[in-house]
Amino acid sequence: MTTVYVLNGPNLNLLGLRDPNTYGTQTLADVQERCDVVAKESGLELIFRQSNHEGELIDWLHEAGRAVADGTSAGVVLNAGAYTHTSVGLADAISGAFVPTIEVHISNVHARESFRHHSYISPVAAGVIVGLGTYGYDAAIQALAHRENS
Amino acid sequence: MTTVYVLNGPNLNLLGLRDPNTYGTQTLADVQERCDVVAKESGLELIFRQSNHEGELIDWLHEAGRAVADGTSAGVVLNAGAYTHTSVGLADAISGAFVPTIEVHISNVHARESFRHHSYISPVAAGVIVGLGTYGYDAAIQALAHRENS
Amino acid sequence: MTTVYVLNGPNLNLLGLRDPNTYGTQTLADVQERCDVVAKESGLELIFRQSNHEGELIDWLHEAGRAVADGTSAGVVLNAGAYTHTSVGLADAISGAFVPTIEVHISNVHARESFRHHSYISPVAAGVIVGLGTYGYDAAIQALAHRENS
Amino acid sequence: MTTVYVLNGPNLNLLGLRDPNTYGTQTLADVQERCDVVAKESGLELIFRQSNHEGELIDWLHEAGRAVADGTSAGVVLNAGAYTHTSVGLADAISGAFVPTIEVHISNVHARESFRHHSYISPVAAGVIVGLGTYGYDAAIQALAHRENS
Amino acid sequence: MTTVYVLNGPNLNLLGLRDPNTYGTQTLADVQERCDVVAKESGLELIFRQSNHEGELIDWLHEAGRAVADGTSAGVVLNAGAYTHTSVGLADAISGAFVPTIEVHISNVHARESFRHHSYISPVAAGVIVGLGTYGYDAAIQALAHRENS
Amino acid sequence: MTTVYVLNGPNLNLLGLRDPNTYGTQTLADVQERCDVVAKESGLELIFRQSNHEGELIDWLHEAGRAVADGTSAGVVLNAGAYTHTSVGLADAISGAFVPTIEVHISNVHARESFRHHSYISPVAAGVIVGLGTYGYDAAIQALAHRENS
Amino acid sequence: MTTVYVLNGPNLNLLGLRDPNTYGTQTLADVQERCDVVAKESGLELIFRQSNHEGELIDWLHEAGRAVADGTSAGVVLNAGAYTHTSVGLADAISGAFVPTIEVHISNVHARESFRHHSYISPVAAGVIVGLGTYGYDAAIQALAHRENS
Amino acid sequence: MTTVYVLNGPNLNLLGLRDPNTYGTQTLADVQERCDVVAKESGLELIFRQSNHEGELIDWLHEAGRAVADGTSAGVVLNAGAYTHTSVGLADAISGAFVPTIEVHISNVHARESFRHHSYISPVAAGVIVGLGTYGYDAAIQALAHRENS
Amino acid sequence: MTTVYVLNGPNLNLLGLRDPNTYGTQTLADVQERCDVVAKESGLELIFRQSNHEGELIDWLHEAGRAVADGTSAGVVLNAGAYTHTSVGLADAISGAFVPTIEVHISNVHARESFRHHSYISPVAAGVIVGLGTYGYDAAIQALAHRENS
Amino acid sequence: MTTVYVLNGPNLNLLGLRDPNTYGTQTLADVQERCDVVAKESGLELIFRQSNHEGELIDWLHEAGRAVADGTSAGVVLNAGAYTHTSVGLADAISGAFVPTIEVHISNVHARESFRHHSYISPVAAGVIVGLGTYGYDAAIQALAHRENS
Amino acid sequence: MTTVYVLNGPNLNLLGLRDPNTYGTQTLADVQERCDVVAKESGLELIFRQSNHEGELIDWLHEAGRAVADGTSAGVVLNAGAYTHTSVGLADAISGAFVPTIEVHISNVHARESFRHHSYISPVAAGVIVGLGTYGYDAAIQALAHRENS
Amino acid sequence: MTTVYVLNGPNLNLLGLRDPNTYGTQTLADVQERCDVVAKESGLELIFRQSNHEGELIDWLHEAGRAVADGTSAGVVLNAGAYTHTSVGLADAISGAFVPTIEVHISNVHARESFRHHSYISPVAAGVIVGLGTYGYDAAIQALAHRENS
Repeated sequence: MTTVYVLNGPNLNLLGLRDPNTYGTQTLADVQERCDVVAKESGLELIFRQSNHEGELIDWLHEAGRAVADGTSAGVVLNAGAYTHTSVGLADAISGAFVPTIEVHISNVHARESFRHHSYISPVAAGVIVGLGTYGYDAAIQALAHRENS
Repeated sequence: MTTVYVLNGPNLNLLGLRDPNTYGTQTLADVQERCDVVAKESGLELIFRQSNHEGELIDWLHEAGRAVADGTSAGVVLNAGAYTHTSVGLADAISGAFVPTIEVHISNVHARESFRHHSYISPVAAGVIVGLGTYGYDAAIQALAHRENS
Repeated sequence: MTTVYVLNGPNLNLLGLRDPNTYGTQTLADVQERCDVVAKESGLELIFRQSNHEGELIDWLHEAGRAVADGTSAGVVLNAGAYTHTSVGLADAISGAFVPTIEVHISNVHARESFRHHSYISPVAAGVIVGLGTYGYDAAIQALAHRENS
Repeated sequence: MTTVYVLNGPNLNLLGLRDPNTYGTQTLADVQERCDVVAKESGLELIFRQSNHEGELIDWLHEAGRAVADGTSAGVVLNAGAYTHTSVGLADAISGAFVPTIEVHISNVHARESFRHHSYISPVAAGVIVGLGTYGYDAAIQALAHRENS
Repeated sequence: MTTVYVLNGPNLNLLGLRDPNTYGTQTLADVQERCDVVAKESGLELIFRQSNHEGELIDWLHEAGRAVADGTSAGVVLNAGAYTHTSVGLADAISGAFVPTIEVHISNVHARESFRHHSYISPVAAGVIVGLGTYGYDAAIQALAHRENS
Repeated sequence: MTTVYVLNGPNLNLLGLRDPNTYGTQTLADVQERCDVVAKESGLELIFRQSNHEGELIDWLHEAGRAVADGTSAGVVLNAGAYTHTSVGLADAISGAFVPTIEVHISNVHARESFRHHSYISPVAAGVIVGLGTYGYDAAIQALAHRENS
Repeated sequence: MTTVYVLNGPNLNLLGLRDPNTYGTQTLADVQERCDVVAKESGLELIFRQSNHEGELIDWLHEAGRAVADGTSAGVVLNAGAYTHTSVGLADAISGAFVPTIEVHISNVHARESFRHHSYISPVAAGVIVGLGTYGYDAAIQALAHRENS
Repeated sequence: MTTVYVLNGPNLNLLGLRDPNTYGTQTLADVQERCDVVAKESGLELIFRQSNHEGELIDWLHEAGRAVADGTSAGVVLNAGAYTHTSVGLADAISGAFVPTIEVHISNVHARESFRHHSYISPVAAGVIVGLGTYGYDAAIQALAHRENS
Repeated sequence: MTTVYVLNGPNLNLLGLRDPNTYGTQTLADVQERCDVVAKESGLELIFRQSNHEGELIDWLHEAGRAVADGTSAGVVLNAGAYTHTSVGLADAISGAFVPTIEVHISNVHARESFRHHSYISPVAAGVIVGLGTYGYDAAIQALAHRENS
Repeated sequence: MTTVYVLNGPNLNLLGLRDPNTYGTQTLADVQERCDVVAKESGLELIFRQSNHEGELIDWLHEAGRAVADGTSAGVVLNAGAYTHTSVGLADAISGAFVPTIEVHISNVHARESFRHHSYISPVAAGVIVGLGTYGYDAAIQALAHRENS
Repeated sequence: MTTVYVLNGPNLNLLGLRDPNTYGTQTLADVQERCDVVAKESGLELIFRQSNHEGELIDWLHEAGRAVADGTSAGVVLNAGAYTHTSVGLADAISGAFVPTIEVHISNVHARESFRHHSYISPVAAGVIVGLGTYGYDAAIQALAHRENS
Repeated sequence: MTTVYVLNGPNLNLLGLRDPNTYGTQTLADVQERCDVVAKESGLELIFRQSNHEGELIDWLHEAGRAVADGTSAGVVLNAGAYTHTSVGLADAISGAFVPTIEVHISNVHARESFRHHSYISPVAAGVIVGLGTYGYDAAIQALAHRENS
């Protein structure tokens, strides 16, 4: 069965625990649960992870890249959190490993501090979904599935 | 029945006719047809328009804002094309008319010229979907429907 | 009788209907009514219009320029709304048609987003009035009348 | 009787003595005389001062702030001259002392050197009047009176 | 017979009426007359238009693009006036409709305000002619004819 | 007993070993020893750590945030070293985990290279202490204790 | 007995009177009282002043510089208020008069307007303490005393 | 007989030898031959030169300036190549020697690297022709002839 | 007898007392003494002052402007110190009072911090002399005398 | 025997596996093999590592710094990959640990995206070698050996 | 006898011939004549040259540097004209050849185009004299003589 | 026999004569001697030149380009000195003449003034070697030889 990676970056383990005004009340476990349902509906098997370590996220993108090359994965849904704005390394991992990646942000980053308006990941992403809340994960998984099937 | 507005900005009438490398081979009529299917599946009635005139797009956003206020519309899917990057007026129409708007771009604007990286619309949009091809319209309609129902 | 043009740009037709915190509760019709009183007190006949179309505003400025040249108008009070910050065309119309123009903004644009701090119109305006609420229209008409008489 | 402060900043004591092309031929004494008439017509008592010292202008703004708090003043008309563009201190005095202030510039600062386009005072001012010549003082006093009465 | 479009943007209807120092004394009618002669000499039929509306200019570029595709037009001479500096939409129309376009400016825009030094149109134009006065129209039509023949 | 976290970022393990001109001759062990004394005097228990890994520092800030939420910690003294200038992730950890943090720099970063003048951490810190040498750690612990008691 | 100068810049005489959200409820007299206690505890004699005049603050820094040179003062705690961001003169006074200076800001200037993020004083200060409220004065006096004794 | 100078800057001696994609296949000798024909048709005598030395180009502009002053030359067609973007000296030579100059670029410099978008020469040129290939030389000579005759 | 004003800005009273590497060992009294000699040699009477107050320097420039207008002064030698880089007010005083001013800096400001490279005074000065040490005062007085006599 | 560290940063484990156009077909194992030969020829023992973790690279630089201090290593050849452009921490590790470092980039970073043109590492490196392909590793080892011997 | 070099850069051979408003009516021959007088009065022998070639000016600076090293020259008065703003090579020649250089500009470059406000030469010059007309040459020679004698 | 050009730009004739701290004590003759040895060892014949003239360097690059095209040269080692940072002409010569070029800088330009951080040459160079002292010439010749042989 084809997998879909949902990779979460720094501080997303705090989701729903602290700042409901910006991110809503869902926890990352809630998100995982829903992604599981959506992935299954889309005929994909979910691999769901979170790390605060940039290097670990790069390692996982390489792993996903190998799986895509092997034909066992449809790609990555990536919410890189703060690393979105500072990590050339994640961007290089996506382009270097040829891994189809949908970038997701829960909040509307364009309505927040100006340093959140720039993403190193967007230019190498297959698509970007911003500001739809945790529903953005659903849409991103569906978009990867659609991409896989078309 | 609740409507959904899909509004298209300048040059999108050329879609599929000229530059398949960037925008694919679908024409705007093809997009409209597919939006019609997706809207129906989501329980929404489609209103689909295109204009090269900034002022006309502002007028339509006002119309949509009144419909949302009246409870007869779920909001707008807006591909503002080139006006995305230059029009404060469209952004003011969205925020001034309180119209829930999902901004859509067919191509990955972040991988193109730098003047396409900034959008006046994003900060006032309810969500942004970039680079998913014409499938982005589907995802945006579904996101508005999801928003309507939650 | 000498006329005074009061020209309103994009989204000002929403005035008072939506965002009272920023713009107060007066509608554009209320403003027109008051302008009518003030113009009459100043010995001027009011021509009051609104458009969301940049090109139409340019056409009207040309019309006003001809009237000023003919000695039948004292000039223009212009609230160009969002076009203030993006339209070189309106500025060129003012300078090209030699039409005395008082630029008016209801809210204090300098206390809002940074892109609202720059006006293409100000350098070619005869005067600028900012942040006095809708009273700014009164003051601008009186200033044109004062200019006419001195 | 309620007072209105008209405070003038650096070099305004030169008004009308040297550079008629930019500032006209009226001296500061002429301005004071006219302000006196307009203030009286508006039911206000004029307090008119000029200083080349930033600190003294701050002191006067504090004094005006106390008077406003006591209900004995309608606020300040401030032509801060060159300090407009360089003084955070004056802006802090206005916001810190909660003194309603109409910023006035005789010439059109937006048509002059680029360093005159930015004002530290505008974001904390109750209103801004630019380029109407010395008539701008009249309009500012009337605007404070209008504000007092509405 | 092959046509050549000469499209004029905002405020060019004022040409020769107001500001002879910058633009000379020829009116737009004079320019049209001369273009007619030059076009005929070059074996082209002239289509000459002016509009203050950005959207209308986009529509006309699409029309010209279709004519070029049909082999009935040599392309466009475009003096976009103020829209040169602000309109991504016109540039997208030129590249999206594959219409060969010679950009013309009567005055030397590089010797004027800095915001006139940048053109969104130049990167997608087939050529740019600046500062030759109204003779620039002649040269542009000849260049299109030369292009057509070589 | 209430704890205080003193967290040290990249290269601070080199302290006192290499570059006495910039950082003095105290080693990180010396600093820890002194912090221990000051913490005890302030009625706090010291938790003192160093890491060259951004992700590990984020993990520790989350841990501290939970302790603060549980009422078992007064907060964090953070010398983030080089990550001060590049890590949005640390800043998000501080604000996301609601952990009171005093930012400390041993040297006067404002007198060094320009890229050290900007801190992502400062806007979300409870306070910032710069340039007091290793004494800054003392002052920061005392400030947290003062904050705890007031 | 060795003195410590605590010098306060423009608008700090308003402290506690107007804007409790930003600066707390303590007045400058309250601060002086507490500084007196802390200075005594640190074996220093307090000299506490406030001025809205940049020149007067420069004069006082020179006076303090002479006292430090004479061995009768430990240095200056300086809250330069708005002059922090605009005065090269104060910075030159500190470096020119060789006066050890701890820069203090009550509020977190890095979380406010961007023009408050830059300080001319920081590069020449012996230390900087930001955002600790009025407690920052205590910490600064203690730091100067610590510096005097080590 | 009146002359026209055609002056070519650095690396234009390579024309047609190396990079046909950017500059076409014509050599500089081909260009000279064609310029000779066009000049003759326009009643002008051609002086055609190339140098890689900025100083030599300045010397030639002075020579041309003297010829124009003597009434023996119509002016200069200048393709300054790379010096366009870096040489204030050439621009000063043009304005200092009062020599009418048409700036020519074979390729569309606005569609290339950003450092080629700025020209020191344009603000002092009598006209600018960009992107018409080597035909731009023809057009420039004709424009100078037209200027001479009108 | 015609006077020459030599006006010195903030911190110049420290000259020679503190920082010989940058400013040499001469005190301001030494400079005054030498200026006295040079002025006499040039047939001018010296008026030599120093102030740390921007407003006082503006007052003195006005005084000098009146003296120049009366034909009793040759102008001003101004070393504005730190105010050079921050004071629009001094520049306005020079241009507003029509006072011929030679700007002097003892050290080479262009070899120091970048904020010292810009002077508000230079564009309105009659001349600028930088980096010649205290000899610059001699040269400036001689230049004013030369200007007076030619 | 003296060692040489060759440290590779993020994504270099992908070398030769994915993007031959930019990086050639050699894998990192191939590079290691060749470095082994060159190091031996230069009388050095190779220590060759790769990590995607910034913190681990910092740790290794510290280790190398200790070895250099002990006289058992000649220094580091560092290809920091994407961290080159974002890591102040790596630069601080090099300067803080006093480790002679030759920075290497396989591709010509100056011919790629503009964010790759700046390196935090270059200012503290002993040398920089760019664009020579994997041969750059050879040259860097030889340069360290040369440095060791001279 | 000790020499003084007066070196003039591009276009200064046009001095007095063309643009009297900016540069006065003196020719370069007039300047040379006067420099000869002033040099003699100062006990120096004049070497006066002009070139439009950057390389030749560098050669001359090297020659002057050797003469200074030999004790046969007091240094250089350099009016580098346009190369002032673009030539790192001239600046490197001055600092590399250790030649004391007084930079001179006849006009007030700070009151002209912004690209003339920056000089590569100023940071390495022994002094800078701007805006004193051709008298600046006199003052510069005197300053070099003063420097030689003190 | 295949040649290698080693071309040196402005001021490199001063090498070793003046500024040993930055460039070491080797003269350009020493460098030439060593290059001769290294070139011979690499099977190449050395052509070694220096010029202060930008135009002459361009001429030499063209000559080298012709030799490379003829198969008689391996390419160029170029130390363009100050022209590195200001000459688009040299860069155009390299790319226009298709001459493989290794850019060399003796000192670490990235640790010097910011205007030395940018090179117009790097993007078109085959490789860049910085900061290895005069050994960089050796490495560059070897790299060209390696390139020739692989």
